[in-house]
Amino acid sequence: MIILSPPMTAPPHRSPASSSTADLFAAACGHARRTAVLGSVESLLGWDEQTMLPRAGGPHRADQATAMAAVVHGLRTDPTQAERLAALAASPMATRGTPQERAALRLLKHDADKQSRLPVRLVEELARAAVEAQQAWVEARASSTWSALRPHLVRMFALKREQAACQRPDLDPYDALLDDYEPGARWQRLAEQFAPLRAAVVDLVGECGTAIRRPDESILTERLYPVESQRDFVREVAGRIGFDFGRGRLDTTEHPFCTTLGPDDCRITTRWNERSLPTALFGVLHEAGHGLYEQGLSREWYGLPPGEAASLGIHESQSRLWENLVGRSRPFWEWCFPLARKAFPAALDDVDVDRFREALLAVRPSFIRVEADEVTYNLHVLLRFDLERAVVHGDLAVDDLPAAWNDRFERDFGMRPPDDAHGVLQDIHWSAGLIGYFPTYTLGNLFAAQLMEAARRAVPDFDDQMAAGRFVDLLEWLRREVHAFGRTLESEPLVERATGGCVSGDWLVRSLRDRYGPAYGL
Amino acid sequence: MIILSPPMTAPPHRSPASSSTADLFAAACGHARRTAVLGSVESLLGWDEQTMLPRAGGPHRADQATAMAAVVHGLRTDPTQAERLAALAASPMATRGTPQERAALRLLKHDADKQSRLPVRLVEELARAAVEAQQAWVEARASSTWSALRPHLVRMFALKREQAACQRPDLDPYDALLDDYEPGARWQRLAEQFAPLRAAVVDLVGECGTAIRRPDESILTERLYPVESQRDFVREVAGRIGFDFGRGRLDTTEHPFCTTLGPDDCRITTRWNERSLPTALFGVLHEAGHGLYEQGLSREWYGLPPGEAASLGIHESQSRLWENLVGRSRPFWEWCFPLARKAFPAALDDVDVDRFREALLAVRPSFIRVEADEVTYNLHVLLRFDLERAVVHGDLAVDDLPAAWNDRFERDFGMRPPDDAHGVLQDIHWSAGLIGYFPTYTLGNLFAAQLMEAARRAVPDFDDQMAAGRFVDLLEWLRREVHAFGRTLESEPLVERATGGCVSGDWLVRSLRDRYGPAYGL
Repeated sequence: MIILSPPMTAPPHRSPASSSTADLFAAACGHARRTAVLGSVESLLGWDEQTMLPRAGGPHRADQATAMAAVVHGLRTDPTQAERLAALAASPMATRGTPQERAALRLLKHDADKQSRLPVRLVEELARAAVEAQQAWVEARASSTWSALRPHLVRMFALKREQAACQRPDLDPYDALLDDYEPGARWQRLAEQFAPLRAAVVDLVGECGTAIRRPDESILTERLYPVESQRDFVREVAGRIGFDFGRGRLDTTEHPFCTTLGPDDCRITTRWNERSLPTALFGVLHEAGHGLYEQGLSREWYGLPPGEAASLGIHESQSRLWENLVGRSRPFWEWCFPLARKAFPAALDDVDVDRFREALLAVRPSFIRVEADEVTYNLHVLLRFDLERAVVHGDLAVDDLPAAWNDRFERDFGMRPPDDAHGVLQDIHWSAGLIGYFPTYTLGNLFAAQLMEAARRAVPDFDDQMAAGRFVDLLEWLRREVHAFGRTLESEPLVERATGGCVSGDWLVRSLRDRYGPAYGL
Repeated sequence: MIILSPPMTAPPHRSPASSSTADLFAAACGHARRTAVLGSVESLLGWDEQTMLPRAGGPHRADQATAMAAVVHGLRTDPTQAERLAALAASPMATRGTPQERAALRLLKHDADKQSRLPVRLVEELARAAVEAQQAWVEARASSTWSALRPHLVRMFALKREQAACQRPDLDPYDALLDDYEPGARWQRLAEQFAPLRAAVVDLVGECGTAIRRPDESILTERLYPVESQRDFVREVAGRIGFDFGRGRLDTTEHPFCTTLGPDDCRITTRWNERSLPTALFGVLHEAGHGLYEQGLSREWYGLPPGEAASLGIHESQSRLWENLVGRSRPFWEWCFPLARKAFPAALDDVDVDRFREALLAVRPSFIRVEADEVTYNLHVLLRFDLERAVVHGDLAVDDLPAAWNDRFERDFGMRPPDDAHGVLQDIHWSAGLIGYFPTYTLGNLFAAQLMEAARRAVPDFDDQMAAGRFVDLLEWLRREVHAFGRTLESEPLVERATGGCVSGDWLVRSLRDRYGPAYGL
């Protein structure tokens, strides 16, 4: 039996409630926060594994992750907490509390019920399988050896199907997994939203491919950008858009990610390529966008739904907004280009801001999702969405994934991956057990375009501010309209409230046409 | 209730035992290993705090450390485990098992009994106080502000006295604390061993101070040694003496340390000073010495006493042996000096190996322990040993520590610290709750000198091997005579077995005289 005395104070913004309800609520919140604190220790294990762990340290890290998963699962399924949450659900607070209180009660109960349907054996197996598969993935990708990863993916998909059946027997198994990342989303609705987007993107890629005018991308990918200079440059840019390095870090990894280890400890990561400035620059703008969201969540409600992210789609909307809608815009480079020239004098000596910025708009079908341009990116995502769904639905065997990947890739991109490292082995997600995660990337692009138009209407002199390197009004708008709500609204209502419009792909298509059309003379 | 399924296999080397005893032993070992795995997660929190944590991340890290301390304490005081250990203590294995089994049973029970006498409230308070005091210490040292640390030390000494009274009410309170670091040691015996050493060192320092011949230290401390070159150089040296970077790391920190996060994950740290080569070089040789011990412990017995370090004194003997007895020897520099010249051509252009190696033997009273020379170092330690003991015994108030420090320092070193940053604020130990730890440093020097003489007798061509950069025979001897025993022997029996002589300071005094006498023409 583990005894934890409550180190945290009661949550703020308490509504008038009977003292017994208030005490119960404080106890439930205290438990949830302690669970979040131990969950954040799991996050540290993950961050360290991806950035710092010595080569031979993997097996012990799997033991650590497994043991911590069991500890956290024990807290998440604590019967005393379940009793508290049941009692609170029947209390007046559940209907007459503040919006935060009501959301906290509803979602804590939802999460606990869902977690309690997961046997501890499965929790541990998932944790161990994820660590082992990720380690196998690093090797498999490096040597392009599908057979080294195959058994791990077979095991992982089986475990995830088992998880879906345990946790949400009422749902389609893919929807059950999707619900972990995008609460309330359903694959059929997503498929309907994505179909017109896919058609529009395929058209746009085709037009760009046959256009006579083409941006010259080589200045970004065939010149020398020393890694040490990139390091200083991207740190300066990330800091300027608002990422607080006093409450965060930037490190090097194989597969970039952002993780939060506490309310004042958000860590972003990148990889470096001395021949490609966009790899780290847009990678860091992307992860810093995630980081700005995390750093904008309520510290007072840390560990409770009002202090948590709404969904991965919303998370991705924040990263994509800064990466693409800010970072590939003309005004941004009016401010940033002189810095880039100072950082990379040899590479940018003969380049001006117009040529540089147009180079950022190059559209070119390529094999690797994380290095894809903004336009083709969604085609990468939709491929994964369709394939992983087929595996979960039993329509495709794991063994057939590499061929199915390559066939579909050829159809959408007009070229075939030369090996599996450039195909099915490129992403960490499936190895990490993140199945049902991919569609949130494209959903994030939809949300980002829609949010950016609303922000543009709300912030005066939007472009002038960006051209002066001033991003604080945009960030404040996002803090107020998105970050402040935490998880109290699901993603679609949140975006519709902030923007006044129904969610659809129209904004994204218009945004792509508006920016890429002129660059290609369409 | 936390349920952990056993992921580890049964321990090796099992003696013939009834199947119920064997099962019980396997269960007890499984529990101890799971405890060690979660303890290693605590170690990761500590390592990350000292090397990576963003500035504002401190309070949350305190929450994490507190929560993990409670989880681990819960496992350490698990009543089912206590029952297993009690039953095993009465089983035939306790008298007829292998030496490893008997040591495991005896020490697991000893540790569990000791831990169970500590209330969980005190465990959490100690964990939280340590994190908070260490954060205060960083600030206090940087600004030399005693008042910023004072209340934290008052609290810490009070908590440690409480810990001593709970855990070992049968012992003198200082001995109770000492027992955590040097099992079986008693302060009165240490004081007797240290008194002649102190006298001999004060004499030697005096003779060096008035000698006409003096090593020229300035070449090491007044020239430019670029940090990037130091980084490569010390990594190469640490790797050559045997530190396995495939199973470890080297990082930057404020106060150097070595920590083990798993059987294949040992991390050493250093600080850098571009004007002083010895800071990082001997710091890394020191920490790598600790690391070689950790990397030499039995992987099969990980988490159990036969796979644990014998004591901090033995640990320190390993670090000091590599730092001083290898790293300041003439043969070592026959191999290493050409590397140093290559790494620092500008600084060492006009220096030869003799002048360089003599510079390493400079004896100069100075304020900072971790930068002290090998000879005066023990005076720094004995000062701390006497002061902390006086506080624990109630003979000295925490408020009076700065003055008492400065008075004693002036007596032993003939000069007075200019401020508290150069005095009482320089070490992290008391802030970290490591009270009773200091004497193990000097004990380590005693052991190191004694072990080195035995190794020299056992390894043929000892000096020729070092001069050729070959350290594997020395390391193998240490692995066999020290590392392989883990914690199955206490430190004095271990050293006496390996060396064939009673432990005393004679070897250390002789070793210092032998090396420093010629350098000063004594």
